[in-house]
Amino acid sequence: MERISKAAFQLTLSDFKKSASRISSDIIKTPLLPFQYSDRTLMLKAECLQELGSFKIRAGANAIASANRSDLRNGVVTASAGNFGQGVAKAAQNRGLPVHVIVPDTAAKVKVEALLDLGAQVTTVPFSDWWSVMTTRSTGLDGFFIHPVAELEVISGNGGIGLEIFSQWPEVDVIVVPFGGGGMISGIALAMKALGKNPQIIACEIESSTPLKSAKSSGKPVQVARGESWIDGIGSTSVLPEMWPLLDELVDDVIVVSHLEAEEALRLLSSKAHLVSEGAGAVALAAAMKPQFSGKNIVAVISGGNIDPKTYGEILSRC
Amino acid sequence: MERISKAAFQLTLSDFKKSASRISSDIIKTPLLPFQYSDRTLMLKAECLQELGSFKIRAGANAIASANRSDLRNGVVTASAGNFGQGVAKAAQNRGLPVHVIVPDTAAKVKVEALLDLGAQVTTVPFSDWWSVMTTRSTGLDGFFIHPVAELEVISGNGGIGLEIFSQWPEVDVIVVPFGGGGMISGIALAMKALGKNPQIIACEIESSTPLKSAKSSGKPVQVARGESWIDGIGSTSVLPEMWPLLDELVDDVIVVSHLEAEEALRLLSSKAHLVSEGAGAVALAAAMKPQFSGKNIVAVISGGNIDPKTYGEILSRC
Repeated sequence: MERISKAAFQLTLSDFKKSASRISSDIIKTPLLPFQYSDRTLMLKAECLQELGSFKIRAGANAIASANRSDLRNGVVTASAGNFGQGVAKAAQNRGLPVHVIVPDTAAKVKVEALLDLGAQVTTVPFSDWWSVMTTRSTGLDGFFIHPVAELEVISGNGGIGLEIFSQWPEVDVIVVPFGGGGMISGIALAMKALGKNPQIIACEIESSTPLKSAKSSGKPVQVARGESWIDGIGSTSVLPEMWPLLDELVDDVIVVSHLEAEEALRLLSSKAHLVSEGAGAVALAAAMKPQFSGKNIVAVISGGNIDPKTYGEILSRC
Repeated sequence: MERISKAAFQLTLSDFKKSASRISSDIIKTPLLPFQYSDRTLMLKAECLQELGSFKIRAGANAIASANRSDLRNGVVTASAGNFGQGVAKAAQNRGLPVHVIVPDTAAKVKVEALLDLGAQVTTVPFSDWWSVMTTRSTGLDGFFIHPVAELEVISGNGGIGLEIFSQWPEVDVIVVPFGGGGMISGIALAMKALGKNPQIIACEIESSTPLKSAKSSGKPVQVARGESWIDGIGSTSVLPEMWPLLDELVDDVIVVSHLEAEEALRLLSSKAHLVSEGAGAVALAAAMKPQFSGKNIVAVISGGNIDPKTYGEILSRC
């Protein structure tokens, strides 16, 4: 079995609690908000209310907080231009550590600016060089390298979401989680198991790209097409082999949501829950509204709130 | 001194705690969310996350929960078509009590529908008849009448916001509260005093209607003009005489915000805090961003999130 999956299966309740405690000053315990819908009890885990608008601060902070002090003497290096990179930069800033972020030349200018605002040094490289960093972990820089996906600390940091959900609502039957790379859903599922609980763990994907649904059908990771979508953060072209054993074992079902359903859920999150969600969070709510969850105590994880204002305004005004 | 003000000045810490305890299953303890801004530590008290999108559930629930069981044998009657009416209806529904709401024929259809959805019986009357109910408290109906503004239980229910802010951030220096009728700012200020704390209590108003600023300047309530605005819930034509002694004593300063400032704050609440706020909440954030609060530990109360989706989309897309 792949290294990360094997190590993750061995995480104990004590490991998850230690991770949560390490990052307690970097994050907020996000509220679980009631959302009236039809014939079920539905609650929203509002990770969009984290300071940078995403659950990824948990993993970024945990990766830094878990490192030995001597490893951090030259600061921190990562290779994510998105929410994870921001999370690492923020957690480094909280600890007075220098941080260097390698971003591909395809990264949006607004994301680079957000990193600079957090005090990061940013180096832009051609996409192929950036991808090489992701696969080799070799940066040529002195700082402590943190990989945005394949780190045990990412999974244990995200496990805190599971601990919080259980403490807020022990009666939960079903948890719906957006599927990006699998770090969040694995962390939540493993934390629940460590607590001795077995809620149904449901992944959700957008119709334009369904790597996990396809892997589940095929019994192994396969390449899928990636269609156009206004939704980012989920929808890659394949499940990472390192993550597959976890996902194969821990995810009970995958629900695929249409763009129309996601847009309607985005509007409901605004008008009824007063939350600004990014597309992935809206996909989780849309999945939790499906008829199959009638009568259940169900949580939808609203993973983040970073959405382009123009796109957001347009979808809201389509109501 | 007017009856309500006199009674309110006598509220003790025990009274506020009892009110908070009575309504603990009707409300959530809303999070205090960090908001990075300039040279101050700014936190948002996110009352827009209450189930019906407004702090008014606190007062509505407390008014019902404080009544004698025998007074409630014929259910509850109120005369608000807005957030307060919804709060009363929801709290009545939570307790299996029938509720009858008298609304003026000027009330928006969407508000009447929201009341019907909560199981209320709704009677629509001409505006003059509705105003007569507000001034005489006489409805001709059997149920227990709850006035939307001039009730001690409104003030003590809102005091819970103050208790929560103190428990979440004892170091708070300044609290900025939107001014509608004065029930919220009085409750928060009195709860703080009951705790032995004296943060600065700042009211905020929108430029199109400034009854409290004008009353403070004149030393007594005066009539003011009410201009056009997309912001509702604040901006009446005068301070209620019953509330003036409280406001005269408890409010340290009044900040008037322009529509441009409020719109910019609304966009920041969306893009940086991922909260959907109504106009009044945006006014509070805009006031808290003023230069005079440099270096302070300041809370802006984001009072609610019920904003017309079309108006909201338009303001967001003006960025």
